[in-house]
Amino acid sequence: MNDKIFTVRLSDDGKAVELIDQTLLPNTIKYLSLTKAEDIWEAIFELRVRGAPAIGVAAGFGMYVLAQQIPHESYDDFLSDLTRAGKYLDSSRPTAVNLSYAVNRMLDTVRAHEGMSRTQLLPILKAECMAIYDEDRDMCRRISENGLTLVKSGDGILTHCNAGALAATEYGTGLGTLLLGKERGYEFHAYTDETRPLLQGARLTSFELNHAGIDVTLICDNAASLLMKQGKINACFVGCDRVAANGDTANKIGTRSVAINAKYHGIPFYVFCPSSTIDFNCKSGDEIVIEERSGEEIKTKFFEKPVAEAEVKCFNPAFDVTDAELITAIITERGIARYPYTESLAKLFL
Amino acid sequence: MNDKIFTVRLSDDGKAVELIDQTLLPNTIKYLSLTKAEDIWEAIFELRVRGAPAIGVAAGFGMYVLAQQIPHESYDDFLSDLTRAGKYLDSSRPTAVNLSYAVNRMLDTVRAHEGMSRTQLLPILKAECMAIYDEDRDMCRRISENGLTLVKSGDGILTHCNAGALAATEYGTGLGTLLLGKERGYEFHAYTDETRPLLQGARLTSFELNHAGIDVTLICDNAASLLMKQGKINACFVGCDRVAANGDTANKIGTRSVAINAKYHGIPFYVFCPSSTIDFNCKSGDEIVIEERSGEEIKTKFFEKPVAEAEVKCFNPAFDVTDAELITAIITERGIARYPYTESLAKLFL
Repeated sequence: MNDKIFTVRLSDDGKAVELIDQTLLPNTIKYLSLTKAEDIWEAIFELRVRGAPAIGVAAGFGMYVLAQQIPHESYDDFLSDLTRAGKYLDSSRPTAVNLSYAVNRMLDTVRAHEGMSRTQLLPILKAECMAIYDEDRDMCRRISENGLTLVKSGDGILTHCNAGALAATEYGTGLGTLLLGKERGYEFHAYTDETRPLLQGARLTSFELNHAGIDVTLICDNAASLLMKQGKINACFVGCDRVAANGDTANKIGTRSVAINAKYHGIPFYVFCPSSTIDFNCKSGDEIVIEERSGEEIKTKFFEKPVAEAEVKCFNPAFDVTDAELITAIITERGIARYPYTESLAKLFL
Repeated sequence: MNDKIFTVRLSDDGKAVELIDQTLLPNTIKYLSLTKAEDIWEAIFELRVRGAPAIGVAAGFGMYVLAQQIPHESYDDFLSDLTRAGKYLDSSRPTAVNLSYAVNRMLDTVRAHEGMSRTQLLPILKAECMAIYDEDRDMCRRISENGLTLVKSGDGILTHCNAGALAATEYGTGLGTLLLGKERGYEFHAYTDETRPLLQGARLTSFELNHAGIDVTLICDNAASLLMKQGKINACFVGCDRVAANGDTANKIGTRSVAINAKYHGIPFYVFCPSSTIDFNCKSGDEIVIEERSGEEIKTKFFEKPVAEAEVKCFNPAFDVTDAELITAIITERGIARYPYTESLAKLFL
């Protein structure tokens, strides 16, 4: 990854959330500087910033940026306005737990300092959003270290969607093992699902891995099964958007199919999971709300001409849930959990 | 399907192969009239006509059109020129058995009339290519009748790629059951995989089914597994490009993944298969050559802008092989075969 490229950060003056517009990659590298609530909401909604950890970091910065714009000195008015801003930001994506995690953490920070004035609270909030950011970087590094114990140089790794640096802050989660391994001389062969409909694998993952000097081959999602049969895949690496207490994992649509194919071929299927993505209040995948998006993403987005008639209906779920039993291991910053996950995740975190 | 739309036919004067350019659907309906060997080759290679049965019919017509252009009256010279033309046409797609089947059938017809002159042979060749066409229509109807015994009104049917009228001559194979059922008052809910990279499901299947008045929902290939989990799919319908004697089935890339997902969810997976697509000389799927196509189909084709950088490698197989054990039944014009197929297919055909 080019040193000059970053995913999301707080501007030097602390007044703006700065992020790379991922909807324009790989053709255009453009940074946005966002100060208004509507613009931060839109950037998350339109996937200009995406990937659960990156969304969380952006939301933390966003809360701090918006907190500075609250005109009230009194604790109650300040908390009331910030709560409203948080509710608004939280409405931009329904599935990613990191979004509400970061929003709530910022609000909890205010509540933990009951009675303080706006002037007293702002530096505390700044420290808190920077802490979210720093913890994310640290978390990515630990996850990558843990992932590296599961593979060896020369392995073929199938990736789905993007759980790389562009989905987080530095190494990323799902790709962190490849990036860290590369630094240590491992030679991986990455096979990257393009990831329809939004093509995060093509636009982001192949971009990231190629720039990191990792051998990467782009495939249509449809070709993963053939590669597995041909013996080219030694492990599958995916990120996650919400992991239930029993290990059921919501991630980009198509992840479930990769996992089922991996199981059929006897190939390990690994979920890279920051602890912030585990929702212990959610017992199983049945409780996870699946976001449905516009059919235009299937029929017209990215295309020169529509690929189906306007009157044809579409079903466009953004996520699916992979059954815990299909997952070989969940790799977290605290360690590696294995099935059954209700016990192994609780042991690591509770 | 609109009565005015046809897939492939011989022109009234018999001098040209006429076909709808499927690469332009659904936005433009344009017919081509092809007389030159290079143009017929190009139409098959570029998938302007595609689908194993339709390719076979087009190749039969093509052989007759080219036969008329041979300037030699003598049997030997005529056969020699036509053999050369056949070899050329046969080189346009390596995997579909119907192509070589039709080419060889036309050449065998000449050989069966050894010593005849060009003038004597031409009407015989015309009758032969028309016979290929008529047999295909009859075959599609029989397959559709057999398929209808496997489903009931109200069923949700997942389709992959296009094995409809646009892939054959009238009803098609994989979609024929839906079209015939519709005529008889069945209400199906079709879920159509868009089928990356060439999007035949979006461009062709959703077009055909929508125009036939069948309830159709377009999905990304990635969403099929979620629909299965949600209980929306009662059966999967696919066509085939080459079926080995043991039932291993080459079909559009991604078919294998649909079959593995169907097996995991306990959903029947049906292959619709004209007898001309069964290759009894091919013992198993291991012997089937998988055509690899340009990575530009993944990165640039159909798109407004490239979706990955120019230097990123691609792997773009056009087909995969579905293991016989994953296939619930193979539906042919002679009847329905079930696993183990070496016995059941032989019983139907040998």
